[in-house]
Amino acid sequence: MQLFYSQQISEGKILLDETESRHAISVLRKQKGDVLQVIDGKGGCYDAKITEANKKRALLSIQNQTSYPKSDKQLHLVLAPTKNIDRIEWLLEKAIEIGLSSIHFIQCERSERKQVNLERLEKIALAACKQSLTWHFPEIHAMQNLSSFLSEQASGDRFIAVCEEAEFLLQKTSEIKNEVWVMIGPEGDFSPREYEEARKAGWKGISLGDKRLRTETAALLAVAEINFIWQA
Amino acid sequence: MQLFYSQQISEGKILLDETESRHAISVLRKQKGDVLQVIDGKGGCYDAKITEANKKRALLSIQNQTSYPKSDKQLHLVLAPTKNIDRIEWLLEKAIEIGLSSIHFIQCERSERKQVNLERLEKIALAACKQSLTWHFPEIHAMQNLSSFLSEQASGDRFIAVCEEAEFLLQKTSEIKNEVWVMIGPEGDFSPREYEEARKAGWKGISLGDKRLRTETAALLAVAEINFIWQA
Repeated sequence: MQLFYSQQISEGKILLDETESRHAISVLRKQKGDVLQVIDGKGGCYDAKITEANKKRALLSIQNQTSYPKSDKQLHLVLAPTKNIDRIEWLLEKAIEIGLSSIHFIQCERSERKQVNLERLEKIALAACKQSLTWHFPEIHAMQNLSSFLSEQASGDRFIAVCEEAEFLLQKTSEIKNEVWVMIGPEGDFSPREYEEARKAGWKGISLGDKRLRTETAALLAVAEINFIWQA
Repeated sequence: MQLFYSQQISEGKILLDETESRHAISVLRKQKGDVLQVIDGKGGCYDAKITEANKKRALLSIQNQTSYPKSDKQLHLVLAPTKNIDRIEWLLEKAIEIGLSSIHFIQCERSERKQVNLERLEKIALAACKQSLTWHFPEIHAMQNLSSFLSEQASGDRFIAVCEEAEFLLQKTSEIKNEVWVMIGPEGDFSPREYEEARKAGWKGISLGDKRLRTETAALLAVAEINFIWQA
């Protein structure tokens, strides 16, 4: 199933933007009368017939609509991005395939990367959502200082992954809330001061086992395990 | 902790091969008298002092030895490699970090890739083992036809991941044996004939959930979940 994405859906009509129009009309040679599957990233999936096969602004008429309810489970990943951005892009794709509600980037004392290209990450996320049939798109948040992030309100279970001395192993946790936050530090780990600050803000230290995991592997393992606990 | 690898360890001496010698002596500027940590990939970790700082054949004298026992849990991944080999290289790195005993490549009817470069995969595996403190190296097996692979003896739980109509969800499985085999098909999935053949050979169909997962994501999710079940 080939999916298209649009944010401009109203009154029975769908307008595809330039990127999606080009893909449908120029690349895939779709024509007037062909039916496409279009998603809105908010749970809606539409069968829609092309009424104007414009290569820059294709117009479609909705024939059928399916609404996928939002899960009551919300997993938020909070991450100090790695120096090599490929690893983050890869992680984002995989985490979306497995199940993710939002990703937040933080800057820590030992962070080697000070910024992320949100536009590029949004594109990767869109492709991953289409590929994996993820009807509700995850939110991608701009980079923020750790202290500023911690000062904001957060509900649900909040876990901070640490390399040593964790309060508990995620593997031994059978009951978690429907809203879970997981924070993963930079390649050089959180500083003791940062860890203490997070603990004071209500984050619990967790270990992901006795292997030395790369940042993005730790993040993906946490995403897989939390989804697993919810489904088990 | 920086680790070096050697297969030539005997009578209290360790010889580093050209790659490892160059890295230690030329790149890291280690000198006679410096102590290195050397692993043998079979559970042994040695503290060894450099006695000959040769850039092609460094010689070390063992001062201390630690032996890590092999886990009683064995996870074998059987995989039809993707057209894009980057995805397999990435998967191998991550699966080793999380926990993997062996990987077997199979060729299926719908496989787009007919071969893998074992030498390159061995290098990636070695780097991942060093990085993640994996003391027992996983076995990497050459590509084999699916039928020929299925005709070989295999013990333990054997699961074949299918896109539809699985006998059970891996997520609902709380008890698994200490030896588990997981088979993941090519991008176009197993053919019905192949699936039937595997079923007859004693493999059970499993689903990894209702998301449409890429081959390498399905494989990594299975590795994460099986390790999780064992540890829970």
